[in-house]
Amino acid sequence: MRFYSICTIWATIVVATATDSNSDTTFIFNGDGCEQNHLFQTRYRPQIQQLASDVQRIIDHVMSVNESGRTYRQLAEFVDRFGSRLTGTKNLEDSIDYMIDLLRQEGHDNVHGESVQVPRWTRGNEWARMIKPREKKLNILGLGYSEGTNGQTIEAPIVVVRNFTELEQKSRLIPGKIVVYNFHYESYGKQAIYRHSGASRAAEFGAVAAMIRSLTPFSIDSPHTGMQTYDVNVTRIPAISITAEDADLFQRFSDRNEEVIVQIYSENRNEKEQGISRNTVSDIRGEQYPDEIVLVSGHIDSWDVGQGALDDGAGSFISWRALSVIKQLGLRPKRTMRSILWTGEEFGLIGVFDYVKKHQNELKNYVLAMESDIGTFTPKGITFSGRNSTSQCTLWEILQLMHPINATTLTISTEGSDVQAFYENGVPISSLDTANDKYFYFHHTQGDTMTVEQSDDLDKCQALWTSVSYALAMLDDRLPR
Amino acid sequence: MRFYSICTIWATIVVATATDSNSDTTFIFNGDGCEQNHLFQTRYRPQIQQLASDVQRIIDHVMSVNESGRTYRQLAEFVDRFGSRLTGTKNLEDSIDYMIDLLRQEGHDNVHGESVQVPRWTRGNEWARMIKPREKKLNILGLGYSEGTNGQTIEAPIVVVRNFTELEQKSRLIPGKIVVYNFHYESYGKQAIYRHSGASRAAEFGAVAAMIRSLTPFSIDSPHTGMQTYDVNVTRIPAISITAEDADLFQRFSDRNEEVIVQIYSENRNEKEQGISRNTVSDIRGEQYPDEIVLVSGHIDSWDVGQGALDDGAGSFISWRALSVIKQLGLRPKRTMRSILWTGEEFGLIGVFDYVKKHQNELKNYVLAMESDIGTFTPKGITFSGRNSTSQCTLWEILQLMHPINATTLTISTEGSDVQAFYENGVPISSLDTANDKYFYFHHTQGDTMTVEQSDDLDKCQALWTSVSYALAMLDDRLPR
Repeated sequence: MRFYSICTIWATIVVATATDSNSDTTFIFNGDGCEQNHLFQTRYRPQIQQLASDVQRIIDHVMSVNESGRTYRQLAEFVDRFGSRLTGTKNLEDSIDYMIDLLRQEGHDNVHGESVQVPRWTRGNEWARMIKPREKKLNILGLGYSEGTNGQTIEAPIVVVRNFTELEQKSRLIPGKIVVYNFHYESYGKQAIYRHSGASRAAEFGAVAAMIRSLTPFSIDSPHTGMQTYDVNVTRIPAISITAEDADLFQRFSDRNEEVIVQIYSENRNEKEQGISRNTVSDIRGEQYPDEIVLVSGHIDSWDVGQGALDDGAGSFISWRALSVIKQLGLRPKRTMRSILWTGEEFGLIGVFDYVKKHQNELKNYVLAMESDIGTFTPKGITFSGRNSTSQCTLWEILQLMHPINATTLTISTEGSDVQAFYENGVPISSLDTANDKYFYFHHTQGDTMTVEQSDDLDKCQALWTSVSYALAMLDDRLPR
Repeated sequence: MRFYSICTIWATIVVATATDSNSDTTFIFNGDGCEQNHLFQTRYRPQIQQLASDVQRIIDHVMSVNESGRTYRQLAEFVDRFGSRLTGTKNLEDSIDYMIDLLRQEGHDNVHGESVQVPRWTRGNEWARMIKPREKKLNILGLGYSEGTNGQTIEAPIVVVRNFTELEQKSRLIPGKIVVYNFHYESYGKQAIYRHSGASRAAEFGAVAAMIRSLTPFSIDSPHTGMQTYDVNVTRIPAISITAEDADLFQRFSDRNEEVIVQIYSENRNEKEQGISRNTVSDIRGEQYPDEIVLVSGHIDSWDVGQGALDDGAGSFISWRALSVIKQLGLRPKRTMRSILWTGEEFGLIGVFDYVKKHQNELKNYVLAMESDIGTFTPKGITFSGRNSTSQCTLWEILQLMHPINATTLTISTEGSDVQAFYENGVPISSLDTANDKYFYFHHTQGDTMTVEQSDDLDKCQALWTSVSYALAMLDDRLPR
C-alpha cells in the first residue's frame, strides 16, 4: 500500500507527498555508519573516488558558458511546439514522434516506442455559473474521467461540506443537490482523496454533481484538474474542480444559510474506443554489463492545460538529456543507462504499469529506477528507497560530489510516482528532490508553462541527474539491493 | 508631478509604487529631532500621552474576542453580495445604496452621496487566440477605455518588443501588426507606462492592436486589467492585457524567428452617454472643532473582476468602520472624522477630483487626508506626506502607541492614490502601510477576492486606522501643515 503519485492519485489508496511523509520511513541520511561499513569502505568508496573527476567534468560541462541553458532551450522548443499533451490525443503521439527523432539525432541507442493501450477521455465544452444569490461565472476544470451532463444543463442548489464526516452528517440534504467539497488544504497527499473520490462519495448520497476545491495552497482564481475515478455501481455524476476562491465563497454563503444555486454544463466524456500511445525508450548501451540497467525517467504526457512544462516536461527532459550529456562528453558507462518517457501517467500510471508487466522478467537487472516528477526547482539532492546500508552509503558518497551545485542531500524515502511500480516489484527507486514549495501552485493548471522553469535550476538538476545515473552505471560493483 | 495611483495610472505622468520610491523623498522617520522640538515636547506630546488610554481601548476593543473578525465579516457580506463594482454600472450604485443604509444604521452623521458624472466603459464579449504556429486560447482582459474590434475579428502577425526603444527600432515592421509588449517587470510604478500608453505608442507606428504583459511579478496564467488612455489623434486600437506566460511564449517564438499570428475579437466600448455615480460621505461631527476634518477613505468602485475585496473593498471598510468603532466606544472626537468612499477611482480618480473641486474652499480645514488602497495585509504603520517636523514627531509619537499590534513605522512619503488630489491642494496625506509584497499578484485580477484577506490582519489595520484618525481628531492643537 505504498503506492504514490504526484500527478495521479489512483484508486483509493492513501498517499503521501514529499512534505507529509511518515517520519518513521522518511529521513535524511547523513552518512552515519558508513565509516564502519567494511564493504562500502573497501569496494564502493574507492570506486566513487575514482569517478570524482568524471562527475566534475559532467558538472563543469552542464554549467559551462556554452552548455548552460541547453535543457531549458530544448524543453522550451518542445513545449512551445506541442503545448499540453493529453493521453489519447494525436498531439501527444506527434510529440512522441518528435522525441523519437530527437533521441536518434542525439545518438542514443535502441530508440523506440513501446505501444500501450490507453483510455480516451475528452474534454468538451464545459462551464458553470452561480445564478443565485447573484450571477457569477465559475472558473472550472472538469476532472479526468468525469462524465459530462449529457447535453443538459444541471441546475441545483449546493450543499457545502468540509470533509467526508460532514458529508455524512448532511446526507439527508444531498439528494438532488450539488455537493461542494471545501476541505482545508494541508498537503496534496492528505486532501487528494476529495478530488479522487469526492464525486463517488457524493453520488452515494444522491448528489447530481460534485464540485471539489482545487488541490493547492495558493490560488489566483486557479482551477486545478487531475484524475478522479468512480466507484463501481455509483451513478457517474460530473466531477468538477472549482477554485479555492469559489469554494471559500460557497462556504461563506453556506455559513450564512444563504441558498446558492449553480448551473453546470459539460460535454466531457469517456470515449468507447481506446487509443494507442507509447513509452519512449532509449539507451546508452553498457560496455561491460549491458543487461544491467540504470533507469532515468519522467512522463511525457500532461494534462490538457498549460504546457506541461513543470509536470512533467522538465522531468522528462533532464532524464533523456542525462544520456545525451554522457554521449557529448564521450563517456562510456559500464552498465546500460536507459531513459524512458512514460505515457499515460496522468490517467493512472498506464505506461509504467504496462512496461513493468511486459518487462517483468528483466526487472532483477534494474539497478535503480530514477524519476523526476516533482518539478525541477533548485535541487537539494535525491530520495532513495533502498534500506541496504551499503547502497545508502554509496549514494550518499556520490552526492558528496555534488557540493559544487549544493545538492548533496540524500533522503531515504519510498516515494515515487511512475517508478513506484518498480518499487512494488523489488527495484529500488529514486526521485529528484528539489526546493519545490511552489509546485502545487501550478500543478495541473493553465499556469504550468515555461514561465515556471528557471534555466539555472534546470542546469543544476541536469548536472545532478546525469552525475548520479552515470556513477551508478560506472561502479564495478552493482548497487546492492 | 507627484501624481500617484495604485489602482489607476492617469495621463502619462510617471509614477512610483511604495516599493520603488525615490529614496530622496521617502524615508522612515525614527523620531530624530523630536527631543529638541520644543513645540512638540510642550504641546503635542503631553496631549498624545493623555490619549494613550483611549488608543489602548480602541486596540483592545477591535482585537477583543467579541469584536475580532467584524471588519472581515462585514466586508465579506458586502463583496459576496455585490461582487465587483465597475464604475458606471447599476451594481456599483446598488452597492452605494447599501453602504448609505449601513452607515445610517451604524449611527454615522451626515450620511449622503455626492453625485459625480462618470464615464461608462463596457466590457463585452472578448477573446483572443494564437492560430500560428499552433492553436492556443489566450487568457486576456481588455484594458479600461479600450475600444473593441467593431464586430470584426482582427487577425495579424505579432511583433514583440521589450520596451519603447525596441518599439522604435522595429517601427518599420509594425504597420498592420499586433504589438506585444513583453517588458521586464521591476515594479508596478516603473512598468505601468506600458499598460497605460502602450496602445497609443503602437498605434503611432501603424499597429492594429496592442497586447500588453500583465503588470505583475507572479502569475498563474493571470491576466490583469487596468486603465489605459489614448493619446489625442492616434487611431484607437484595442488594448489588451495578456498573461506573463503568453508574453514569455511570444518572446520565445520571436527569439526563434517563428511567425506568430493572433486573432482578437472584442466588443468593448466607450458608451456615448455618461453615468452618474456618488462619493459616499459620512461623519462623526466634532464636538469642539466641527469644521476641522480628519478624513479616512478608500474607493468603493473596483474593476469588473474578482470581488474588489483587496482593491479596495478592504480599504473602504477599515475607513468607514474607524468611525463606527469610535461610535461603539462612545468616544467623542473634538474634530470631525469624515469617511469617504470614493467612486470612479479605477477610471481615473474621478470621484476625488470632483470632490476636491467642489469642496475647494474647505480644504484648508482638512487636517489630514488618509487613504487605504494598497491592501490590508499585516500593517507596518502609515506613510505621511508632511514635511513639518512637529507634525512628523506627532504622528511618530501616536504610532508608538501601536506597539501592541506591532505597527509603529512612520514613513515619510508623498504617495497616495485618491488622496493625491488633496496633496496637490495643500492637504497633507497619509496611506496605510502594510507588508503588501503580494498585492500585485492579485491586483485587477479575478483573484481579488476575500480569499486574499486575513481576518486578523484586517483587525490590526482597523485598530491602527481608527487609532490614528481618532488621535488626530482629539488633539487640542491641530496637526501643523
